[in-house]
Amino acid sequence: MGTDKKTLIVFSGDLDRAIAAFVIANGAAAMGDEVTMFFTFWGLSILRKPRRGKVRHPGQSRLQAMFGRLMPSGPDKLRLSQLNFAGMGAPMLRTVMRQKNVASLQSLMATAKEQGIKLLACTMSMDVMGFGPEDLIDGVEFVGVASYLGEADEANVNLFI
Amino acid sequence: MGTDKKTLIVFSGDLDRAIAAFVIANGAAAMGDEVTMFFTFWGLSILRKPRRGKVRHPGQSRLQAMFGRLMPSGPDKLRLSQLNFAGMGAPMLRTVMRQKNVASLQSLMATAKEQGIKLLACTMSMDVMGFGPEDLIDGVEFVGVASYLGEADEANVNLFI
Amino acid sequence: MGTDKKTLIVFSGDLDRAIAAFVIANGAAAMGDEVTMFFTFWGLSILRKPRRGKVRHPGQSRLQAMFGRLMPSGPDKLRLSQLNFAGMGAPMLRTVMRQKNVASLQSLMATAKEQGIKLLACTMSMDVMGFGPEDLIDGVEFVGVASYLGEADEANVNLFI
Repeated sequence: MGTDKKTLIVFSGDLDRAIAAFVIANGAAAMGDEVTMFFTFWGLSILRKPRRGKVRHPGQSRLQAMFGRLMPSGPDKLRLSQLNFAGMGAPMLRTVMRQKNVASLQSLMATAKEQGIKLLACTMSMDVMGFGPEDLIDGVEFVGVASYLGEADEANVNLFI
Repeated sequence: MGTDKKTLIVFSGDLDRAIAAFVIANGAAAMGDEVTMFFTFWGLSILRKPRRGKVRHPGQSRLQAMFGRLMPSGPDKLRLSQLNFAGMGAPMLRTVMRQKNVASLQSLMATAKEQGIKLLACTMSMDVMGFGPEDLIDGVEFVGVASYLGEADEANVNLFI
Repeated sequence: MGTDKKTLIVFSGDLDRAIAAFVIANGAAAMGDEVTMFFTFWGLSILRKPRRGKVRHPGQSRLQAMFGRLMPSGPDKLRLSQLNFAGMGAPMLRTVMRQKNVASLQSLMATAKEQGIKLLACTMSMDVMGFGPEDLIDGVEFVGVASYLGEADEANVNLFI
Protein backbone atom coordinates (compact mmCIF):
# COMPACT_ATOMS: atom_id res chain seq x y z
CA MET A 1 0.00 0.00 0.00
CA GLY A 2 1.54 3.30 -1.09
CA THR A 3 1.13 6.56 0.74
CA ASP A 4 -2.00 8.43 -0.18
CA LYS A 5 -2.94 11.92 0.80
CA LYS A 6 -6.11 13.23 2.42
CA THR A 7 -7.36 16.76 3.07
CA LEU A 8 -10.15 17.99 5.31
CA ILE A 9 -11.60 21.48 5.34
CA VAL A 10 -12.80 22.09 8.88
CA PHE A 11 -15.37 24.87 8.47
CA SER A 12 -17.51 23.93 11.46
CA GLY A 13 -16.59 24.72 15.03
CA ASP A 14 -19.04 22.26 16.60
CA LEU A 15 -17.63 19.72 19.03
CA ASP A 16 -19.26 16.77 17.30
CA ARG A 17 -17.99 17.71 13.85
CA ALA A 18 -14.53 18.52 15.22
CA ILE A 19 -14.36 15.04 16.77
CA ALA A 20 -15.45 13.46 13.47
CA ALA A 21 -12.78 15.43 11.59
CA PHE A 22 -9.96 14.34 13.91
CA VAL A 23 -11.12 10.70 14.06
CA ILE A 24 -11.02 10.52 10.25
CA ALA A 25 -7.71 12.40 10.06
CA ASN A 26 -6.04 10.25 12.72
CA GLY A 27 -7.39 7.06 11.17
CA ALA A 28 -5.93 7.98 7.81
CA ALA A 29 -2.58 8.99 9.33
CA ALA A 30 -2.47 5.69 11.24
CA MET A 31 -2.86 3.90 7.89
CA GLY A 32 0.20 5.74 6.59
CA ASP A 33 -1.49 8.60 4.72
CA GLU A 34 -0.33 12.20 4.65
CA VAL A 35 -3.14 14.32 6.08
CA THR A 36 -3.77 18.06 5.86
CA MET A 37 -6.51 19.87 7.79
CA PHE A 38 -7.47 23.39 6.68
CA PHE A 39 -9.36 25.31 9.40
CA THR A 40 -11.58 28.14 8.24
CA PHE A 41 -14.44 30.27 9.64
CA TRP A 42 -15.94 28.68 12.79
CA GLY A 43 -13.40 25.89 12.55
CA LEU A 44 -10.76 28.34 13.83
CA SER A 45 -12.46 28.04 17.25
CA ILE A 46 -10.96 24.57 17.58
CA LEU A 47 -7.43 25.95 17.30
CA ARG A 48 -7.89 28.90 19.67
CA LYS A 49 -5.95 29.07 22.90
CA PRO A 50 -7.97 29.54 26.09
CA ARG A 51 -8.58 33.28 26.42
CA ARG A 52 -6.84 35.43 28.98
CA GLY A 53 -9.50 37.91 30.03
CA LYS A 54 -11.54 40.16 27.81
CA VAL A 55 -8.74 42.28 26.46
CA ARG A 56 -9.32 43.62 22.96
CA HIS A 57 -6.33 43.33 20.61
CA PRO A 58 -4.79 46.53 19.39
CA GLY A 59 -6.02 46.92 15.83
CA GLN A 60 -9.14 44.79 16.39
CA SER A 61 -12.38 46.51 15.50
CA ARG A 62 -15.33 46.46 17.93
CA LEU A 63 -17.17 43.97 15.72
CA GLN A 64 -14.12 41.71 15.57
CA ALA A 65 -13.80 41.84 19.34
CA MET A 66 -17.47 40.80 19.55
CA PHE A 67 -16.94 37.81 17.24
CA GLY A 68 -13.89 36.95 19.32
CA ARG A 69 -15.87 37.01 22.55
CA LEU A 70 -18.75 34.98 21.16
CA MET A 71 -16.74 32.27 19.42
CA PRO A 72 -15.59 29.44 21.66
CA SER A 73 -11.90 29.29 22.58
CA GLY A 74 -10.53 25.82 22.11
CA PRO A 75 -11.86 22.26 22.46
CA ASP A 76 -13.09 22.75 26.05
CA LYS A 77 -15.58 25.39 24.99
CA LEU A 78 -17.07 23.95 21.81
CA ARG A 79 -20.79 23.23 21.58
CA LEU A 80 -22.83 20.59 19.78
CA SER A 81 -24.48 21.09 16.40
CA GLN A 82 -27.55 19.19 17.65
CA LEU A 83 -29.20 18.61 21.03
CA ASN A 84 -27.28 21.53 22.43
CA PHE A 85 -29.71 22.04 25.38
CA ALA A 86 -28.51 25.52 26.17
CA GLY A 87 -24.94 24.30 26.45
CA MET A 88 -25.61 21.02 28.33
CA GLY A 89 -25.25 18.76 25.26
CA ALA A 90 -21.48 19.14 24.89
CA PRO A 91 -20.70 18.24 28.54
CA MET A 92 -23.06 15.26 28.17
CA LEU A 93 -21.18 14.06 25.10
CA ARG A 94 -17.81 14.60 26.80
CA THR A 95 -19.00 12.55 29.79
CA VAL A 96 -20.39 9.67 27.79
CA MET A 97 -17.21 9.56 25.65
CA ARG A 98 -15.13 9.35 28.84
CA GLN A 99 -17.40 6.58 30.19
CA LYS A 100 -16.88 4.60 26.98
CA ASN A 101 -13.13 5.26 26.93
CA VAL A 102 -13.33 7.17 23.65
CA ALA A 103 -10.52 9.70 23.20
CA SER A 104 -11.46 13.32 23.95
CA LEU A 105 -11.04 16.03 21.32
CA GLN A 106 -7.97 17.28 23.21
CA SER A 107 -6.31 13.91 23.02
CA LEU A 108 -7.36 13.43 19.38
CA MET A 109 -5.65 16.77 18.64
CA ALA A 110 -2.50 15.70 20.49
CA THR A 111 -2.43 12.46 18.47
CA ALA A 112 -2.86 14.42 15.26
CA LYS A 113 0.24 16.46 16.09
CA GLU A 114 2.23 13.38 17.04
CA GLN A 115 1.29 11.77 13.74
CA GLY A 116 2.51 14.81 11.84
CA ILE A 117 -0.87 15.88 10.51
CA LYS A 118 -0.54 19.33 8.94
CA LEU A 119 -2.77 21.94 10.59
CA LEU A 120 -3.41 24.97 8.36
CA ALA A 121 -5.34 28.07 9.43
CA CYS A 122 -7.08 30.19 6.81
CA THR A 123 -5.57 33.67 6.90
CA MET A 124 -8.60 35.31 5.28
CA SER A 125 -10.87 34.01 8.06
CA MET A 126 -8.34 35.03 10.72
CA ASP A 127 -8.33 38.50 9.25
CA VAL A 128 -12.13 38.73 9.27
CA MET A 129 -12.48 37.37 12.81
CA GLY A 130 -9.56 39.47 14.05
CA PHE A 131 -7.45 36.49 15.21
CA GLY A 132 -3.67 36.78 15.17
CA PRO A 133 -1.16 33.89 15.17
CA GLU A 134 -0.75 34.37 18.93
CA ASP A 135 -4.43 33.46 19.44
CA LEU A 136 -4.00 29.97 18.01
CA ILE A 137 -2.18 26.94 19.39
CA ASP A 138 1.41 26.23 18.42
CA GLY A 139 2.29 24.22 15.34
CA VAL A 140 -0.29 25.77 13.03
CA GLU A 141 0.67 27.17 9.62
CA PHE A 142 -1.03 30.29 8.26
CA VAL A 143 -2.02 30.02 4.62
CA GLY A 144 -4.57 31.09 2.02
CA VAL A 145 -7.06 29.02 0.08
CA ALA A 146 -4.52 28.48 -2.76
CA SER A 147 -2.35 26.42 -0.41
CA TYR A 148 -5.31 24.27 0.53
CA LEU A 149 -6.14 23.76 -3.16
CA GLY A 150 -2.56 22.77 -3.89
CA GLU A 151 -2.78 20.07 -1.22
CA ALA A 152 -6.21 18.90 -2.38
CA ASP A 153 -4.90 18.49 -5.93
CA GLU A 154 -2.46 15.85 -4.68
CA ALA A 155 -4.97 14.05 -2.44
CA ASN A 156 -7.34 11.19 -3.26
CA VAL A 157 -9.90 12.01 -0.54
CA ASN A 158 -11.04 15.59 0.18
CA LEU A 159 -13.82 16.35 2.65
CA PHE A 160 -15.61 19.53 3.77
CA ILE A 161 -16.73 19.28 7.39
CA MET B 1 -17.98 3.78 -18.99
CA GLY B 2 -16.29 1.61 -16.35
CA THR B 3 -17.56 1.16 -12.85
CA ASP B 4 -16.53 3.89 -10.48
CA LYS B 5 -16.94 3.95 -6.76
CA LYS B 6 -18.48 6.60 -4.53
CA THR B 7 -18.57 7.00 -0.75
CA LEU B 8 -20.70 9.24 1.43
CA ILE B 9 -20.18 9.90 5.12
CA VAL B 10 -23.61 10.61 6.55
CA PHE B 11 -22.86 12.55 9.73
CA SER B 12 -26.07 14.57 9.79
CA GLY B 13 -29.40 13.17 10.90
CA ASP B 14 -31.50 15.95 9.35
CA LEU B 15 -34.28 14.88 6.98
CA ASP B 16 -33.17 17.27 4.24
CA ARG B 17 -29.54 16.15 4.31
CA ALA B 18 -30.56 12.48 4.51
CA ILE B 19 -32.70 12.92 1.39
CA ALA B 20 -29.79 14.62 -0.42
CA ALA B 21 -27.45 11.78 0.56
CA PHE B 22 -29.78 9.06 -0.74
CA VAL B 23 -30.63 10.95 -3.95
CA ILE B 24 -26.92 11.24 -4.74
CA ALA B 25 -26.22 7.63 -3.73
CA ASN B 26 -29.13 6.23 -5.74
CA GLY B 27 -28.23 8.37 -8.75
CA ALA B 28 -24.68 7.05 -8.74
CA ALA B 29 -25.83 3.44 -8.29
CA ALA B 30 -28.29 3.86 -11.18
CA MET B 31 -25.32 4.93 -13.35
CA GLY B 32 -23.55 1.69 -12.49
CA ASP B 33 -21.31 2.89 -9.65
CA GLU B 34 -20.56 1.00 -6.47
CA VAL B 35 -21.73 3.15 -3.56
CA THR B 36 -20.89 2.97 0.14
CA MET B 37 -22.61 5.07 2.81
CA PHE B 38 -20.96 5.36 6.23
CA PHE B 39 -23.39 6.53 8.94
CA THR B 40 -21.87 8.19 11.98
CA PHE B 41 -23.02 10.38 14.90
CA TRP B 42 -26.46 11.89 14.24
CA GLY B 43 -26.59 10.04 10.92
CA LEU B 44 -27.28 6.85 12.88
CA SER B 45 -30.78 8.25 13.52
CA ILE B 46 -31.65 7.50 9.91
CA LEU B 47 -30.93 3.80 10.38
CA ARG B 48 -32.78 3.40 13.71
CA LYS B 49 -35.81 1.19 13.94
CA PRO B 50 -38.98 2.77 15.34
CA ARG B 51 -38.69 2.54 19.13
CA ARG B 52 -40.76 0.15 21.19
CA GLY B 53 -41.47 2.13 24.36
CA LYS B 54 -38.98 3.85 26.62
CA VAL B 55 -37.13 0.78 27.81
CA ARG B 56 -33.49 1.37 28.67
CA HIS B 57 -31.07 -1.28 27.36
CA PRO B 58 -29.22 -3.32 29.89
CA GLY B 59 -25.73 -1.89 29.94
CA GLN B 60 -26.81 1.54 28.71
CA SER B 61 -25.81 4.42 30.96
CA ARG B 62 -28.36 7.07 31.96
CA LEU B 63 -26.72 9.59 29.63
CA GLN B 64 -26.80 7.12 26.74
CA ALA B 65 -30.47 6.45 27.40
CA MET B 66 -31.05 10.21 27.28
CA PHE B 67 -29.26 10.54 23.91
CA GLY B 68 -31.30 7.58 22.72
CA ARG B 69 -34.59 9.19 23.75
CA LEU B 70 -33.71 12.55 22.24
CA MET B 71 -32.39 11.33 18.91
CA PRO B 72 -35.03 10.60 16.27
CA SER B 73 -35.78 6.97 15.45
CA GLY B 74 -35.85 6.42 11.73
CA PRO B 75 -36.89 8.43 8.67
CA ASP B 76 -40.40 9.19 9.99
CA LYS B 77 -39.02 11.15 12.91
CA LEU B 78 -36.23 13.19 11.35
CA ARG B 79 -36.33 16.99 11.46
CA LEU B 80 -35.13 19.70 9.10
CA SER B 81 -31.79 21.50 9.42
CA GLN B 82 -33.53 24.78 8.50
CA LEU B 83 -37.04 26.19 8.86
CA ASN B 84 -37.81 23.57 11.44
CA PHE B 85 -40.74 25.57 12.95
CA ALA B 86 -40.84 23.57 16.16
CA GLY B 87 -41.17 20.36 14.21
CA MET B 88 -43.61 21.53 11.50
CA GLY B 89 -40.96 21.94 8.77
CA ALA B 90 -40.34 18.23 8.22
CA PRO B 91 -44.04 17.33 7.77
CA MET B 92 -44.35 20.30 5.38
CA LEU B 93 -41.42 19.01 3.31
CA ARG B 94 -42.83 15.46 3.33
CA THR B 95 -46.20 16.76 2.12
CA VAL B 96 -44.80 18.92 -0.66
CA MET B 97 -42.56 16.05 -1.82
CA ARG B 98 -45.60 13.78 -1.99
CA GLN B 99 -47.54 16.44 -3.92
CA LYS B 100 -44.70 16.67 -6.46
CA ASN B 101 -44.32 12.87 -6.69
CA VAL B 102 -40.80 12.97 -5.34
CA ALA B 103 -39.75 9.75 -3.60
CA SER B 104 -39.90 9.83 0.20
CA LEU B 105 -36.82 9.06 2.29
CA GLN B 106 -38.31 5.64 3.11
CA SER B 107 -38.62 4.77 -0.53
CA LEU B 108 -35.18 6.23 -1.33
CA MET B 109 -33.78 3.91 1.36
CA ALA B 110 -35.63 0.91 -0.09
CA THR B 111 -34.21 1.72 -3.53
CA ALA B 112 -30.72 2.01 -2.06
CA LYS B 113 -31.01 -1.51 -0.67
CA GLU B 114 -32.39 -2.89 -3.94
CA GLN B 115 -29.48 -1.32 -5.80
CA GLY B 116 -27.00 -2.98 -3.45
CA ILE B 117 -25.70 0.20 -1.86
CA LYS B 118 -23.53 -0.73 1.11
CA LEU B 119 -24.80 0.73 4.41
CA LEU B 120 -22.11 0.92 7.10
CA ALA B 121 -22.73 2.03 10.69
CA CYS B 122 -19.86 3.51 12.69
CA THR B 123 -19.26 1.29 15.72
CA MET B 124 -17.54 4.03 17.72
CA SER B 125 -20.61 6.27 17.43
CA MET B 126 -22.92 3.35 18.25
CA ASP B 127 -20.87 2.72 21.36
CA VAL B 128 -21.03 6.38 22.44
CA MET B 129 -24.77 6.68 21.78
CA GLY B 130 -25.48 3.29 23.32
CA PHE B 131 -27.03 1.76 20.20
CA GLY B 132 -26.75 -1.98 19.60
CA PRO B 133 -27.10 -3.79 16.27
CA GLU B 134 -30.72 -4.62 17.25
CA ASP B 135 -31.55 -0.89 17.28
CA LEU B 136 -30.75 -0.45 13.59
CA ILE B 137 -32.55 -1.70 10.50
CA ASP B 138 -31.52 -4.95 8.84
CA GLY B 139 -28.81 -5.10 6.21
CA VAL B 140 -26.40 -2.71 7.92
CA GLU B 141 -22.74 -3.63 8.50
CA PHE B 142 -20.96 -2.52 11.67
CA VAL B 143 -17.48 -1.16 11.04
CA GLY B 144 -14.86 1.31 12.23
CA VAL B 145 -13.44 4.35 10.49
CA ALA B 146 -10.63 2.26 8.94
CA SER B 147 -13.17 0.37 6.84
CA TYR B 148 -14.63 3.64 5.59
CA LEU B 149 -11.14 4.88 4.70
CA GLY B 150 -10.41 1.68 2.82
CA GLU B 151 -13.52 2.23 0.71
CA ALA B 152 -12.76 5.92 0.18
CA ASP B 153 -9.28 5.08 -1.09
CA GLU B 154 -10.86 3.15 -3.96
CA ALA B 155 -13.49 5.77 -4.77
CA ASN B 156 -13.33 8.76 -7.11
CA VAL B 157 -15.98 10.82 -5.30
CA ASN B 158 -16.13 11.09 -1.50
CA LEU B 159 -18.56 13.41 0.25
CA PHE B 160 -19.21 14.36 3.90
CA ILE B 161 -22.86 15.17 4.50
CA MET C 1 0.26 21.98 -14.31
CA GLY C 2 -2.63 20.67 -16.41
CA THR C 3 -6.22 21.72 -16.00
CA ASP C 4 -8.01 19.92 -13.23
CA LYS C 5 -11.69 19.97 -12.49
CA LYS C 6 -13.49 20.69 -9.23
CA THR C 7 -17.13 20.34 -8.21
CA LEU C 8 -18.99 21.73 -5.22
CA ILE C 9 -22.47 20.73 -4.12
CA VAL C 10 -23.92 23.80 -2.41
CA PHE C 11 -26.67 22.35 -0.21
CA SER C 12 -26.54 25.05 2.46
CA GLY C 13 -28.07 28.49 2.06
CA ASP C 14 -26.17 30.06 4.96
CA LEU C 15 -24.17 33.21 4.18
CA ASP C 16 -20.99 31.88 5.78
CA ARG C 17 -21.07 28.58 3.89
CA ALA C 18 -21.97 30.34 0.64
CA ILE C 19 -18.94 32.61 1.03
CA ALA C 20 -16.71 29.59 1.71
CA ALA C 21 -18.05 27.83 -1.40
CA PHE C 22 -17.37 30.78 -3.69
CA VAL C 23 -13.93 31.51 -2.19
CA ILE C 24 -12.90 27.89 -2.89
CA ALA C 25 -14.49 27.92 -6.35
CA ASN C 26 -12.92 31.22 -7.37
CA GLY C 27 -9.55 30.18 -5.99
CA ALA C 28 -9.59 27.00 -8.06
CA ALA C 29 -10.73 28.85 -11.19
CA ALA C 30 -7.96 31.40 -10.70
CA MET C 31 -5.48 28.50 -10.69
CA GLY C 32 -6.81 27.39 -14.07
CA ASP C 33 -9.25 24.71 -12.96
CA GLU C 34 -12.68 24.08 -14.44
CA VAL C 35 -15.22 24.50 -11.65
CA THR C 36 -18.84 23.38 -11.41
CA MET C 37 -21.18 24.35 -8.57
CA PHE C 38 -24.41 22.37 -8.13
CA PHE C 39 -26.99 24.23 -6.01
CA THR C 40 -29.60 22.11 -4.27
CA PHE C 41 -32.14 22.49 -1.43
CA TRP C 42 -31.41 25.59 0.69
CA GLY C 43 -28.48 26.41 -1.60
CA LEU C 44 -31.01 27.58 -4.18
CA SER C 45 -31.59 30.64 -1.94
CA ILE C 46 -28.22 31.97 -3.04
CA LEU C 47 -29.31 32.01 -6.69
CA ARG C 48 -32.72 33.58 -6.11
CA LYS C 49 -33.52 36.99 -7.51
CA PRO C 50 -34.80 39.59 -5.04
CA ARG C 51 -38.56 39.02 -4.70
CA ARG C 52 -41.11 41.39 -6.13
CA GLY C 53 -43.93 41.36 -3.62
CA LYS C 54 -45.72 38.36 -2.18
CA VAL C 55 -47.32 37.10 -5.34
CA ARG C 56 -47.86 33.36 -5.46
CA HIS C 57 -46.90 31.69 -8.76
CA PRO C 58 -49.63 30.11 -10.78
CA GLY C 59 -49.25 26.40 -10.20
CA GLN C 60 -47.49 26.82 -6.84
CA SER C 61 -49.15 25.02 -3.96
CA ARG C 62 -49.79 26.83 -0.67
CA LEU C 63 -46.97 24.92 1.00
CA GLN C 64 -44.58 25.81 -1.81
CA ALA C 65 -45.55 29.45 -1.51
CA MET C 66 -44.80 29.22 2.21
CA PHE C 67 -41.33 27.73 1.57
CA GLY C 68 -40.80 30.46 -1.00
CA ARG C 69 -41.69 33.21 1.48
CA LEU C 70 -39.55 31.77 4.26
CA MET C 71 -36.42 31.04 2.24
CA PRO C 72 -34.10 34.01 1.72
CA SER C 73 -33.99 35.59 -1.73
CA GLY C 74 -30.43 36.11 -2.85
CA PRO C 75 -27.12 36.97 -1.17
CA ASP C 76 -28.47 40.09 0.57
CA LYS C 77 -30.92 38.07 2.62
CA LEU C 78 -28.88 35.06 3.70
CA ARG C 79 -28.33 34.34 7.38
CA LEU C 80 -25.45 32.82 9.34
CA SER C 81 -25.26 29.17 10.39
CA GLN C 82 -23.87 30.23 13.77
CA LEU C 83 -24.15 33.32 15.99
CA ASN C 84 -27.21 34.38 14.07
CA PHE C 85 -28.50 36.65 16.89
CA ALA C 86 -32.01 36.87 15.53
CA GLY C 87 -30.70 38.06 12.19
CA MET C 88 -27.97 40.44 13.41
CA GLY C 89 -25.07 38.05 12.77
CA ALA C 90 -25.15 38.28 8.98
CA PRO C 91 -25.06 42.11 8.87
CA MET C 92 -22.20 41.99 11.40
CA LEU C 93 -20.24 39.62 9.16
CA ARG C 94 -20.96 41.75 6.08
CA THR C 95 -19.72 44.86 7.90
CA VAL C 96 -16.53 43.31 9.20
CA MET C 97 -15.77 41.85 5.74
CA ARG C 98 -16.18 45.32 4.23
CA GLN C 99 -13.90 46.79 6.92
CA LYS C 100 -11.22 44.22 6.08
CA ASN C 101 -11.65 44.69 2.31
CA VAL C 102 -12.78 41.10 1.83
CA ALA C 103 -14.99 40.62 -1.24
CA SER C 104 -18.72 40.39 -0.51
CA LEU C 105 -20.75 37.36 -1.61
CA GLN C 106 -22.22 39.45 -4.41
CA SER C 107 -18.82 40.29 -5.78
CA LEU C 108 -17.59 36.70 -5.30
CA MET C 109 -20.57 35.59 -7.39
CA ALA C 110 -19.78 38.15 -10.10
CA THR C 111 -16.18 36.92 -10.19
CA ALA C 112 -17.38 33.33 -10.47
CA LYS C 113 -19.38 34.24 -13.55
CA GLU C 114 -16.48 36.17 -15.08
CA GLN C 115 -14.23 33.18 -14.54
CA GLY C 116 -16.69 30.91 -16.32
CA ILE C 117 -17.62 28.81 -13.31
CA LYS C 118 -20.59 26.63 -14.21
CA LEU C 119 -23.63 27.26 -11.99
CA LEU C 120 -26.10 24.35 -11.98
CA ALA C 121 -29.47 24.39 -10.20
CA CYS C 122 -31.03 21.08 -9.10
CA THR C 123 -34.36 20.72 -10.88
CA MET C 124 -35.75 18.26 -8.33
CA SER C 125 -35.23 20.80 -5.54
CA MET C 126 -36.69 23.59 -7.68
CA ASP C 127 -39.74 21.45 -8.23
CA VAL C 128 -40.17 20.73 -4.52
CA MET C 129 -39.66 24.37 -3.49
CA GLY C 130 -41.80 25.63 -6.33
CA PHE C 131 -39.09 27.75 -7.96
CA GLY C 132 -39.16 28.34 -11.70
CA PRO C 133 -36.22 29.38 -13.91
CA GLU C 134 -37.52 32.98 -13.73
CA ASP C 135 -36.93 32.98 -9.94
CA LEU C 136 -33.19 32.44 -10.30
CA ILE C 137 -30.46 34.75 -11.59
CA ASP C 138 -29.36 34.60 -15.21
CA GLY C 139 -26.66 32.24 -16.39
CA VAL C 140 -27.78 29.22 -14.37
CA GLU C 141 -28.32 25.81 -15.99
CA PHE C 142 -31.14 23.54 -14.82
CA VAL C 143 -30.11 19.93 -14.40
CA GLY C 144 -30.69 16.75 -12.43
CA VAL C 145 -28.37 14.88 -10.11
CA ALA C 146 -27.07 12.74 -13.00
CA SER C 147 -25.47 15.82 -14.57
CA TYR C 148 -23.74 16.64 -11.31
CA LEU C 149 -22.47 13.07 -11.05
CA GLY C 150 -21.14 13.21 -14.60
CA GLU C 151 -19.13 16.33 -13.71
CA ALA C 152 -17.92 14.84 -10.41
CA ASP C 153 -16.63 11.75 -12.22
CA GLU C 154 -14.23 13.96 -14.18
CA ALA C 155 -13.11 16.04 -11.20
CA ASN C 156 -10.28 15.44 -8.74
CA VAL C 157 -11.83 17.42 -5.86
CA ASN C 158 -15.54 17.16 -4.96
CA LEU C 159 -16.98 18.86 -1.89
CA PHE C 160 -20.43 18.94 -0.25
CA ILE C 161 -21.06 22.28 1.46
